[in-house]
Amino acid sequence: MLRSFIPTAPDSHFPIQNLPYGAYQTEYGDIHLCSAIGDFVIDLFVLDEEGLFDGPLLKDQFVFQDSSLNYFLSLGQAAWTEARETLQALLHKDNPRLRDDDLLHSRVFKGREEVEMVLPCDIGDYTDFYSSEQHARNVGSMFRDPENALMPNWKYLPVGYHGRSSSIVLSGTELHRPKGQILPDNSESPVFKASERIDFELEMGFITGTGNKLGERIPVNEAESHIFGLALLNDWSARDIQKWEYKPLGPFLAKNWATSISPWIVTLDALKPFRVEAPEQSPAPLEYLAQTNPTTFDIQLEVYLKTSKMNEPERICTTNYRHLYWTIAQQLAHHTVNGCNMRPGDLCGSGTISGNEKGTFGSLLELAWNGTDPIRLHSGESRSFLEDGDELILTGSAQGDGYRIGFGEVKGKILPAIS
Amino acid sequence: MLRSFIPTAPDSHFPIQNLPYGAYQTEYGDIHLCSAIGDFVIDLFVLDEEGLFDGPLLKDQFVFQDSSLNYFLSLGQAAWTEARETLQALLHKDNPRLRDDDLLHSRVFKGREEVEMVLPCDIGDYTDFYSSEQHARNVGSMFRDPENALMPNWKYLPVGYHGRSSSIVLSGTELHRPKGQILPDNSESPVFKASERIDFELEMGFITGTGNKLGERIPVNEAESHIFGLALLNDWSARDIQKWEYKPLGPFLAKNWATSISPWIVTLDALKPFRVEAPEQSPAPLEYLAQTNPTTFDIQLEVYLKTSKMNEPERICTTNYRHLYWTIAQQLAHHTVNGCNMRPGDLCGSGTISGNEKGTFGSLLELAWNGTDPIRLHSGESRSFLEDGDELILTGSAQGDGYRIGFGEVKGKILPAIS
Repeated sequence: MLRSFIPTAPDSHFPIQNLPYGAYQTEYGDIHLCSAIGDFVIDLFVLDEEGLFDGPLLKDQFVFQDSSLNYFLSLGQAAWTEARETLQALLHKDNPRLRDDDLLHSRVFKGREEVEMVLPCDIGDYTDFYSSEQHARNVGSMFRDPENALMPNWKYLPVGYHGRSSSIVLSGTELHRPKGQILPDNSESPVFKASERIDFELEMGFITGTGNKLGERIPVNEAESHIFGLALLNDWSARDIQKWEYKPLGPFLAKNWATSISPWIVTLDALKPFRVEAPEQSPAPLEYLAQTNPTTFDIQLEVYLKTSKMNEPERICTTNYRHLYWTIAQQLAHHTVNGCNMRPGDLCGSGTISGNEKGTFGSLLELAWNGTDPIRLHSGESRSFLEDGDELILTGSAQGDGYRIGFGEVKGKILPAIS
Repeated sequence: MLRSFIPTAPDSHFPIQNLPYGAYQTEYGDIHLCSAIGDFVIDLFVLDEEGLFDGPLLKDQFVFQDSSLNYFLSLGQAAWTEARETLQALLHKDNPRLRDDDLLHSRVFKGREEVEMVLPCDIGDYTDFYSSEQHARNVGSMFRDPENALMPNWKYLPVGYHGRSSSIVLSGTELHRPKGQILPDNSESPVFKASERIDFELEMGFITGTGNKLGERIPVNEAESHIFGLALLNDWSARDIQKWEYKPLGPFLAKNWATSISPWIVTLDALKPFRVEAPEQSPAPLEYLAQTNPTTFDIQLEVYLKTSKMNEPERICTTNYRHLYWTIAQQLAHHTVNGCNMRPGDLCGSGTISGNEKGTFGSLLELAWNGTDPIRLHSGESRSFLEDGDELILTGSAQGDGYRIGFGEVKGKILPAIS
């Protein structure tokens, strides 16, 4: 098995097999692109400045001296693979170049817990899909009719809508409970107040690499080569605001107060060993969505809640990315089939990822079944929705043979509404 | 009346009272910010390089040497007013500085018809509202119930949703008819084909100047000071794609294949003489939307259609911006009331602007009443939706005493679907 001279525990999210991409703020206030191994971030700016990205595509391109990944993303799959291979060679246990150069070593490796991570790319547009069948069924059962829980279009297309890119924040950002218009029960006119139904949504998002020109489309069987990697995503939601505002044009203020993502983008190259067959689709998708050998990824996902009374977070959900009905290739092919153009760094959320039974649902709305069955916590507390001071943590990883490809985590705490 | 040494006809859209902002590509391929007067664009890069923006806020700031307006937008109302006053002084008929310097004159003024305009700012996020009551009533009457045409929330909040910023294009961009999933009549499963119901939507959009931080909000009575100006906007729509896809999360591929805007942003300063009282609102808006002295603008709007058989475009709609129920201040206050952050250069569309009778409706959907009453054209043709080769032109202006503040136009032609 590939090993680095940087030791990594078997349960570390960041072995030499992973090498995800992020960005951190240096002690001088600059933004440097970075990767991660074990307990360290790897400063890619320094490696690039030293001329160590010397493969045919990246040599003298200074791609890691930018403050965002967007240019690197635009270069495409061959450049991404070259960067990965260069990094794996530099980090290899038998390669003295970096291992034995103490000065360079100290410039390149920084304690992962000590640095402040920032968003690694400019996200031009953010789209959120709705691709978990069980989630769509749960929501449809609660709010419409359990017999007709799915909308008629759901099995024909990956339903999605546009989100807000300005309010995408990094893990760790604390968020004030939003205020908005809410319709009280048995009333015809709304009131303005702080939301009482703050929820999380466990999602993953893909980051696009190479885009497409306006008017062109990305065919479904080429779509994965346009996708750079995946990150964890929490699509914070205010259910009471959503309920009143969303007809007929969809969620707006219920969602756009914040979307949190993990600091690390894990590449599809790193996830290759964890490909699994995608769920069977019936009816068969239309031709433009019909993927040859559709695959997805076996990524174990967990959600933890830490109320202000708890010392340790408590797990409230365990599920798996592979449950999603629509694949990322289908999502991207659908998104562009009308000629809509993607740019490098665009973000597409999966939609809430829910499994088949209660402990696998990816939102409090579903876990507590719209407040009718609050979840009981070890602290003696219960929750239907999030309360002030609650911290929510999403994490996920793919388990290999002797190593683990992890996504780190996306954390966020709900603060009281601003008065 | 203020006059420039550059002559402008009384019906010119660009007298010295206007001075809108745009950007053009120079003969060397650079992007220069510009304004317009009469038949010329005014190269603001050159004026700035010459040190002619010498007021206290803009001196030595090089704001017009950027290739986008975003930094200028971030400076706020006082800087915008200073730039306007500087330009009006430089262009004044009695000011020899620019008038009599032939070399500078030739560097600054370029024929407006000869230059290629480009998008003047980076639009981070694009939101589209739905703020014309008559439009919402028309759509509700056609697709739901004429007796309950408005959704229960419509009179309480400015309904809006997120659009796609990557596919915002400038006037003149030709667009291929999009393909997508369409549900045939009396069928339960969709087919994939070119849209047969391509429509325009006559809108105006505001461009934000100074933004707000995530978690903060912009109060309704301060909102206008955060708005830089207005532009014309055509929210192209594929009605058949929209009908099948939009439940429950709103329009997606029906809209994101293109949104066209005019090259010119007209400032609120220039529109000041055309302020009129906003329509009365009943029920009274909630406090956070209750504007003291709500005003809007008297802007005459027109839509022209030129089919491939016509020599001249034919007017198919005349309406007025003042018909909108919700004001731009209310839209912005609502958008941020949950803490959603706006950035300089964000775009917020008004929604289709429709008046009270047929010739004043701002979409073909309404003008031809969902295909049941096609519009008859002088060429002998009729239209329910746009056909290949049809060119659509939106224009608008505010009529002053002896001068006109115009928005130029936003044009677009529908090309056949790519096969």
